[in-house]
Amino acid sequence: MLLSRCRGLGRVYGRPQPKSVMSSAIMAQTMTTQTLVSYHTTGNNLPPKESTLSKFNFPCSTHTISKVTKDLDSLMGQKVTLHGHLNRKPRLMSVNSFAELRDHSGQCTQLIMTPDSTPIKSFEELKKSIPEEAVSVTGTVKLKHPKPGQEHIKEWELLVEDYQVLNTSNSTASELDKLKHSNPESLPAHLRYLQLRTPFFQNALRKRSQASYIVRQVLIENHDFTEIETPLLFKSTPEGAREFLVPTRTRDKFYALPQSPQQYKQILMSSGFTRYFQLAKCFRDEDLRADRQPEFTQIDLEMSYINNSDQVGKVVEDVVNNLWRKVAKSPLYRPLGDDLVEEIEHEASSTSSLLLPKLPYKQALALYGIDKPDLRSTLKFVDLSEFFHSKKDPNYPIVEACVLRQALDKKKHKLPKFLNAAENYPGRKPIILPISSAGPDWHKNLVEAQVLFTQPTFDAEKLKTLLNLQPGDILAISTRSEMPYENPTPLGKFRQLAIQEWPTKWRRQVKDRTTGEISPPPQAADFFVGSWVVDFPLFNPVETDMVNGFPQYDFSKLESTHHPFTMVKSEDYEYLASDPLKAHGEHYDLVINGVEAGGGSRRVHDAELQKYILSELLEIENYRELFGHLLDALSLGCPPHAGLALGFDRLCTLLVGSTSIRDVIAFPKNQSGIDPMVESPTSVTSEVLDSYHIELKKLDSSIQDDFTKE
Amino acid sequence: MLLSRCRGLGRVYGRPQPKSVMSSAIMAQTMTTQTLVSYHTTGNNLPPKESTLSKFNFPCSTHTISKVTKDLDSLMGQKVTLHGHLNRKPRLMSVNSFAELRDHSGQCTQLIMTPDSTPIKSFEELKKSIPEEAVSVTGTVKLKHPKPGQEHIKEWELLVEDYQVLNTSNSTASELDKLKHSNPESLPAHLRYLQLRTPFFQNALRKRSQASYIVRQVLIENHDFTEIETPLLFKSTPEGAREFLVPTRTRDKFYALPQSPQQYKQILMSSGFTRYFQLAKCFRDEDLRADRQPEFTQIDLEMSYINNSDQVGKVVEDVVNNLWRKVAKSPLYRPLGDDLVEEIEHEASSTSSLLLPKLPYKQALALYGIDKPDLRSTLKFVDLSEFFHSKKDPNYPIVEACVLRQALDKKKHKLPKFLNAAENYPGRKPIILPISSAGPDWHKNLVEAQVLFTQPTFDAEKLKTLLNLQPGDILAISTRSEMPYENPTPLGKFRQLAIQEWPTKWRRQVKDRTTGEISPPPQAADFFVGSWVVDFPLFNPVETDMVNGFPQYDFSKLESTHHPFTMVKSEDYEYLASDPLKAHGEHYDLVINGVEAGGGSRRVHDAELQKYILSELLEIENYRELFGHLLDALSLGCPPHAGLALGFDRLCTLLVGSTSIRDVIAFPKNQSGIDPMVESPTSVTSEVLDSYHIELKKLDSSIQDDFTKE
Repeated sequence: MLLSRCRGLGRVYGRPQPKSVMSSAIMAQTMTTQTLVSYHTTGNNLPPKESTLSKFNFPCSTHTISKVTKDLDSLMGQKVTLHGHLNRKPRLMSVNSFAELRDHSGQCTQLIMTPDSTPIKSFEELKKSIPEEAVSVTGTVKLKHPKPGQEHIKEWELLVEDYQVLNTSNSTASELDKLKHSNPESLPAHLRYLQLRTPFFQNALRKRSQASYIVRQVLIENHDFTEIETPLLFKSTPEGAREFLVPTRTRDKFYALPQSPQQYKQILMSSGFTRYFQLAKCFRDEDLRADRQPEFTQIDLEMSYINNSDQVGKVVEDVVNNLWRKVAKSPLYRPLGDDLVEEIEHEASSTSSLLLPKLPYKQALALYGIDKPDLRSTLKFVDLSEFFHSKKDPNYPIVEACVLRQALDKKKHKLPKFLNAAENYPGRKPIILPISSAGPDWHKNLVEAQVLFTQPTFDAEKLKTLLNLQPGDILAISTRSEMPYENPTPLGKFRQLAIQEWPTKWRRQVKDRTTGEISPPPQAADFFVGSWVVDFPLFNPVETDMVNGFPQYDFSKLESTHHPFTMVKSEDYEYLASDPLKAHGEHYDLVINGVEAGGGSRRVHDAELQKYILSELLEIENYRELFGHLLDALSLGCPPHAGLALGFDRLCTLLVGSTSIRDVIAFPKNQSGIDPMVESPTSVTSEVLDSYHIELKKLDSSIQDDFTKE
Repeated sequence: MLLSRCRGLGRVYGRPQPKSVMSSAIMAQTMTTQTLVSYHTTGNNLPPKESTLSKFNFPCSTHTISKVTKDLDSLMGQKVTLHGHLNRKPRLMSVNSFAELRDHSGQCTQLIMTPDSTPIKSFEELKKSIPEEAVSVTGTVKLKHPKPGQEHIKEWELLVEDYQVLNTSNSTASELDKLKHSNPESLPAHLRYLQLRTPFFQNALRKRSQASYIVRQVLIENHDFTEIETPLLFKSTPEGAREFLVPTRTRDKFYALPQSPQQYKQILMSSGFTRYFQLAKCFRDEDLRADRQPEFTQIDLEMSYINNSDQVGKVVEDVVNNLWRKVAKSPLYRPLGDDLVEEIEHEASSTSSLLLPKLPYKQALALYGIDKPDLRSTLKFVDLSEFFHSKKDPNYPIVEACVLRQALDKKKHKLPKFLNAAENYPGRKPIILPISSAGPDWHKNLVEAQVLFTQPTFDAEKLKTLLNLQPGDILAISTRSEMPYENPTPLGKFRQLAIQEWPTKWRRQVKDRTTGEISPPPQAADFFVGSWVVDFPLFNPVETDMVNGFPQYDFSKLESTHHPFTMVKSEDYEYLASDPLKAHGEHYDLVINGVEAGGGSRRVHDAELQKYILSELLEIENYRELFGHLLDALSLGCPPHAGLALGFDRLCTLLVGSTSIRDVIAFPKNQSGIDPMVESPTSVTSEVLDSYHIELKKLDSSIQDDFTKE
């Protein structure tokens, strides 16, 4: 820590000076440094010198546990020094005693103490030892007696010659010992450091470090990118709940923490940098969900003089390809037709096409009901509009179905609760039917009950052939709009829940890229399938209400589907004047296993066009105040550019085979935004608020606030 | 940018919906997507299609200017496409016309248009062109006619076949054209992107990127460090003006932005990570100076199981050594006795000693009057206490001198204003005397005027020999305390000003490490001399007042010289009970050219000792509330550890040969904390403040606030 910054700790925390104390000027004149001692504490509570200093005085380690294991043959009978934590309570026997050392790799080795080799002092230390003490151990590497029937396994232990405790632990560790060995994640959240000591978290955070380094290697060495940091004290834009404010000591002036470096990175393109990236900290003041944190990291990149968004896509694919090969150590597959996948090429190819296929938004919504489909699964939807229509809401005319083949419990033929629970569907729940007989009768009740209405083109035989329902199947039917702004659709949500319920069912088969041979679907968790999703609508109407589970929109008010800086597809340019909702954006999302790993676009670099979008289409009246700096930067010869951001926390979550981003964040906030370890956020005094010219608003019982949220 | 985060832009900025509009539910029922068009703008203001889309449609570049220069022989007569900015106003001649293209490397090449090779369309485009337009140029590489007498210099130009404007510029760029070529830094700050396009800034930010990558390479590949991100939404500690607060939507709960990841990194040591680092964003809400910013980046590292702080020092030296070799491309020197320096070894040595020497704090203050001395200079102080004493303040008994040899203007023998200005000295100004004759009379007036008092041991001849004053010298005399808490001392400040006034005078000579040969002092700006400063006092008394330029202290109240987590030197352990001001800390600062590049320490990993320091020595009453999480993490077997933080902005400033950290920050704040480009910070509406349960404090005219600061 730099000196100049840290001075003062103590001054501020110190007790306020009593008024009666003599003035310091007088005091200084009546005193020399020799007389200082009397002013201070008598020091009775200073911890004993010898035992305290002994914790600072110890031999360097010569090896780690994994290094000994690796070089076992040459180290047999050799003396080594290891550092680590005591993994369990030592077993003290009448003759030999045993303990277990765990080092930072998460690996363990057995310590053995014998009267012959171990001095009494070390025995005495061990007797007092409890789990999670930090220790230094010196001893001789010896072969462990193999267990009967496991003679081929060569394991080693350490015959202890010196055992030194470098820091004591306390009873909490002993109490939690079992918890730690059964389920490290159930250790109390405020003891995050105990959780992090376990192999799972050591591995997760080391892989995250490795991933960030590989991202930099690929972007800098393969693609000549420049890493540039942009400000975190950014400008507040009146988005209310979305951004964090930072008061300043100038009255009524606030910074805001950025949701992304989007504007700064576009200005960097105008600054002459042609290939920018940054592992950027971003902030979002939103209600948190399992995969959200108020602060997160994104791999943010932008390239100028781009005339085709595939140029960005190829760079991103090189990053992702390297991450999967080196960190996940698992192939990345691309989906093919016929419910197949094939591995992508390992070497960055010189072909101009992308490694992962492009899936148009509308097709994604029609087949999978979501813009980030999990393409490990073969599940897709069938359009039943030629057979049925629904009268519930004229804006949702399309009737479609999804069949889960042979999903029902063989005996009971009952629907799983999880899949059928209305609360799992944000809007309306699909009609979900267990098929217990192969007859064509499933739709009769629905038509009679006026839930579905048959079309003039209804053909029962054709429907039967199309769906090919068999006893044991589950059929789900729902409606959607022509251009689905609802995302996921009810059926899309159903598909997600079905994949969660049966993660390895209906998986795609693997086609070998060279031989063409087809092998059965992988059952492992680390099966990764990626694709690009493209051709998003540039705008969508503002959602105003939900009526009977049907979202309602104000079609006269537009919002950007992604952000207002996205370029329209050339062929749709004139729709910007005639019918903006028909315009598609030059946007592309990278989706892996149903996770939106990243998204990007070609940007509008023409100031006039950008102004038109902000003022005329999005009707932002104060657009100059909010975005004037960007428009100015564009108008001074900003080159054409495009970019993308990858959610680094999400990528790492995939790479370590987890489902929660908390597993790859050292000190995450909980769902209330609280860091349970340091106990932030906290109250501050009114004096502190004074210096920012703010005060707490008086509590008004008529106003509902978030006070009860904790 | 990720989809899920960005949705809603437009919704929030949109005009508030008029009350009279029909309910959206009704509207949705009376409308299909086919009827949407009538709701939208007529699009009259949409920029024309062809000219707008042409900016998105252009050939890829085949080369950069520097690549063409490098491969000139093979590219001669070949066709290439280059992208960049028009560097100056084109010169349109009757036959051939000329323009200058600058690309992202900052390099320029001449474009030549001739009626033979250049189509009319390109001529027409060029006619309209103004500086700073982004262009794509395709043409043939040809040799430039050499200037007379420069026939040996091979320069090339581009015979233009296609010239396309990718984005227009505006009149501002033309107005600023001269400014840009004479002094890019005087371009208006709100046009930062124009500044950044110039070669100096392109180079500075690219070197910063290179530096951060090298830091990671060295720490990860050479030393097996793990990069771990720690939270930026941290806990508020009541330090008032020092930290930025972040209000949350829970009433009376605030995060704070961290001044450093100190506590989190120590907790990471307790989490089992043995070698952590991070390029960490840090924040400080302080009044800004030339080398300070409210947000900055530090290379933060920590190592566990450390029994000797040199283990940290050696890692840091490997980082710094690599940065100097690869980024500064200039050697790093270490000071020797006899006013010499020698280059440090280029290869990380296997010896256990550090490459840079250690300078004890007290010696640094006695010789140079500051804890971060610029050791390029040979200037040092002479203790005159055996000759004189001062009666002004008994706590400042030491009288010392600094002689600037042959510094006076040969004719006028007048003191430079800069050196002699009282306002340049934070406390008292030294007595500064121009020596115009070599006589021993300089002190007589001072003694007569009762400014100095001679000691019983005063010996005029001895004094004369000691100082060896010659006409043309400048003599400065001042006082300091035995243990100088004043830092810099008045004479230390004098030395700094003298080095600023005469940057290349009194420089150390260079001794060749292998031959022992001595060469004259380097006169270049990129001459770098580094050292470690050690043996700092662990505590200092709280400064209470300044009386006649003498700082006054309350010796009964301690503050940590660095921070309260610094370990005491073993040999001083008992002083923690008997006389804490006598205790030295296990702290080490890295100083290069008078800049504190970094600082670190061994830490207290014993919870009891840490508690004693916080509660008994620093008298922090609520230490559990503030630091309970850290004490808990220590008490659960936290291993011994030590670490350091390097100021990355300062390091980069040195590496690019600048003196202002603003030169290595893409978008710095000005001295009022304002980003002049995006115009942050800004006002926010009371509705936004409402959501954080805060409001602006009423203006009270009796309270002095910072309102006038801007």
